[in-house]
Amino acid sequence: MSVRLFVDSPLKLKQEVILTENAHHYLVHVMRSVVGETVLLFNGKDGEWAGEIEKISKKEVQLRLVKNMRLQSEEKKSDVWLCFAPVKKDKMDFIIQKATELGVDVLQPVITRRTVVGHINANKMQLQAIEAAEQCERLSVPEIRQPVSLDLLLDKWEKGRTLYYLNERGEGKDFEKKKKVAYLVGPEGGFEPQEIEKIGLLKDACSVHLGRRILRAETACISVLAIHNHLCGWK
Amino acid sequence: MSVRLFVDSPLKLKQEVILTENAHHYLVHVMRSVVGETVLLFNGKDGEWAGEIEKISKKEVQLRLVKNMRLQSEEKKSDVWLCFAPVKKDKMDFIIQKATELGVDVLQPVITRRTVVGHINANKMQLQAIEAAEQCERLSVPEIRQPVSLDLLLDKWEKGRTLYYLNERGEGKDFEKKKKVAYLVGPEGGFEPQEIEKIGLLKDACSVHLGRRILRAETACISVLAIHNHLCGWK
Repeated sequence: MSVRLFVDSPLKLKQEVILTENAHHYLVHVMRSVVGETVLLFNGKDGEWAGEIEKISKKEVQLRLVKNMRLQSEEKKSDVWLCFAPVKKDKMDFIIQKATELGVDVLQPVITRRTVVGHINANKMQLQAIEAAEQCERLSVPEIRQPVSLDLLLDKWEKGRTLYYLNERGEGKDFEKKKKVAYLVGPEGGFEPQEIEKIGLLKDACSVHLGRRILRAETACISVLAIHNHLCGWK
Repeated sequence: MSVRLFVDSPLKLKQEVILTENAHHYLVHVMRSVVGETVLLFNGKDGEWAGEIEKISKKEVQLRLVKNMRLQSEEKKSDVWLCFAPVKKDKMDFIIQKATELGVDVLQPVITRRTVVGHINANKMQLQAIEAAEQCERLSVPEIRQPVSLDLLLDKWEKGRTLYYLNERGEGKDFEKKKKVAYLVGPEGGFEPQEIEKIGLLKDACSVHLGRRILRAETACISVLAIHNHLCGWK
């Protein structure tokens, strides 16, 4: 299987692409790639391309795009956000990786009252999302947003985007197929009653639940995205 | 929140329960429980009971059951198996934990041709399932079966149990609500064509897929179980 990398540059036939730094290190020192080998490239806009390695130097790998493998339009653009209260490192890594595999478009960390995790490195999360996208053969990379408070999230809510929020012990409706949707998963301790009340005031909000068992935050995140794909079509 | 433990003994009102070894260690040295405290107990048959600690000695914790908290019938018995090709340790731990949270009844490791993981400790997996059941407030514990080869699994297939198998690159039907169902998730490299062929010969087998992206084995396991719950009702 070919190496598959996300790049920033435009991709079109015969285009030259220069890879440096991490990508150079990965190709040369990890994968031990050689001149003539094929690498798959995507940038989230121009589909997937096969590039042939033309030259390897100490700091650069030079490729030439030789074939369009997939069109961007193959990956029908869904519009699904995952808004989640940050959790501990390994679980966070896990949520980013799985949400990317499951096709999420936006990952939005949300600070709630019971959120216990302090510092969030959105840039590092973005790199993890890129890596996951490379491996799961996505043509796009989810956008990692800077953390916001729950209040701010609600105050600035995009009109018309359904917000399904997981209400562990409360009543819940069934998920429905929605064009523009976000799933909000609270911290391990759940939302506080005042938070649930405030979310409920949002016109686009809809309470759902995943049964009476206590699901961990990361299980809930993956579950809602799997159900979303089941309802709205896997890509 | 009370400590919640799975026990082997029968549970009924006024019953005395003696906890030793791991449970003793956990209560006394980890949770620093004292006499008079309440512990929740379940055994997979008699619902959930509150027990009061009556006596703590060097090797035993003695409890008396004082109240029935939940009836076993509250947890409607589903009948869902997860048959999966074993993966590396941390991912395996993850599958056991999440599948338990998502209500699986039987976890069946299956050795396929491309399965690369050697030794499987079903007893240790059982302990992990117990721990996950304790934490997610299940009334039952999934049964961990000894690993079998794919051939043996198919040869001895229980008539009438639908086998949904994940066929990554192949055609797939939609999941349907089924009473008795098993989900079969292959190894990272997928099934071999001959394996797919053999599975397809089984009358109860039905090919499904989760889109064209490459889902990791553990993502696929959780996804099918989340969809199962969505279709058949969360408990």
